[in-house]
Amino acid sequence: MNDIICTVDVVLMTLRDSRLHVALLKRDHAPFLGALALPGGYIRAAEDADTQAAAVRMLREKTGIDSPYLEQLATFSGSSRDPRGWSISVAYYALVPAEVIAAGGHPEVELLPVEALKGLPFDHQQIIEAATQRVRNKSSYSSLPVYLCGENFTLPQLQKVYEAILGEPINKVSFRRKLDELDILEAVAGAMETGKAHRPAQLYRLRKCFRQQLSLTGRALNAAG
Amino acid sequence: MNDIICTVDVVLMTLRDSRLHVALLKRDHAPFLGALALPGGYIRAAEDADTQAAAVRMLREKTGIDSPYLEQLATFSGSSRDPRGWSISVAYYALVPAEVIAAGGHPEVELLPVEALKGLPFDHQQIIEAATQRVRNKSSYSSLPVYLCGENFTLPQLQKVYEAILGEPINKVSFRRKLDELDILEAVAGAMETGKAHRPAQLYRLRKCFRQQLSLTGRALNAAG
Repeated sequence: MNDIICTVDVVLMTLRDSRLHVALLKRDHAPFLGALALPGGYIRAAEDADTQAAAVRMLREKTGIDSPYLEQLATFSGSSRDPRGWSISVAYYALVPAEVIAAGGHPEVELLPVEALKGLPFDHQQIIEAATQRVRNKSSYSSLPVYLCGENFTLPQLQKVYEAILGEPINKVSFRRKLDELDILEAVAGAMETGKAHRPAQLYRLRKCFRQQLSLTGRALNAAG
Repeated sequence: MNDIICTVDVVLMTLRDSRLHVALLKRDHAPFLGALALPGGYIRAAEDADTQAAAVRMLREKTGIDSPYLEQLATFSGSSRDPRGWSISVAYYALVPAEVIAAGGHPEVELLPVEALKGLPFDHQQIIEAATQRVRNKSSYSSLPVYLCGENFTLPQLQKVYEAILGEPINKVSFRRKLDELDILEAVAGAMETGKAHRPAQLYRLRKCFRQQLSLTGRALNAAG
């Protein structure tokens, strides 16, 4: 065989205070003992059907979360990224609402804004930057940001999530039209957002068939027109 | 360590008769001895700086080609894709003009249309389908298809290459405007396409800074307007 170290790492992201955050954990063993790092670890050939299954297991073990959206990001590799030797990390990313991280029952999970990271071990900084870039690109023409919302949300709330990720205001009329094109939402019968000063707004949720699958638009959601 | 088989595979694609083709080689050892398969093989930790370097080496050894464009596609893995055991294949794809494959000096390389493949070993069919999908998606908003052209080409030739990949006719005026946006081409001074019945056309080439780097447009090249 060979002596290559085979691991997976998961970039678990959420939105807090309208900024993308990533979930990090203090490492409990060498190398980089005590440093904040991505949840990850060795692939177990006897246990994991493939790298996706390994990522699902890692996320469950280390954060208590089963993310409905978990996608392969890219593979990072080489002789210099891990002091233990030549290694491969198949990196995945996941998006969940912040409440899901709190409910995961792992209070040791720390959320840090993706823009304020430094001194991370291995090439985790580079992996997180690649994931952030992927989320921003993909959000502009897909339903991806919906995974950052809770189960039910109003259209203005959803628009705010898109705006937070894309980093710019979006025209409301054009946003609503593109949402219609995506055809991913259904009104929650009889459910309105309450307890706010303004007029109650209809609550929506993802249609069942899209809960684990993206819908794509032909044109960017933040494009003019 | 572990007993995971670590390999790279390269989907080397070109355009022939206006159809995307993939380069395959008869396997010279078990498993699947004699079957046509993607050029690929074991990562050598002592020799390859990372998986990209392993893919470059594989392409050079098996096809004699140094492709200016070589991008990571995705990683395929699991217990069932290789009869030898749990394996990882980090897959790459490369695009070159058909002349480059002929000039590689490996006459054993066979070119097959991506649409007419069957009975490939491992999950190579799935890897090639993913690469084809990626090339089609990426071509609609980038300079990627230029890597399928020879060093010098006319604008009508380039348009035909885009049309072949995207599988639909493109409006000439809108195509030219988006090429201007991409700003990747330079006229080859004094060079005109000759020997044709019609009026000679200016030859163009990729500007040097784009020979190993894509340029992206904000809107699809085959979009209206």
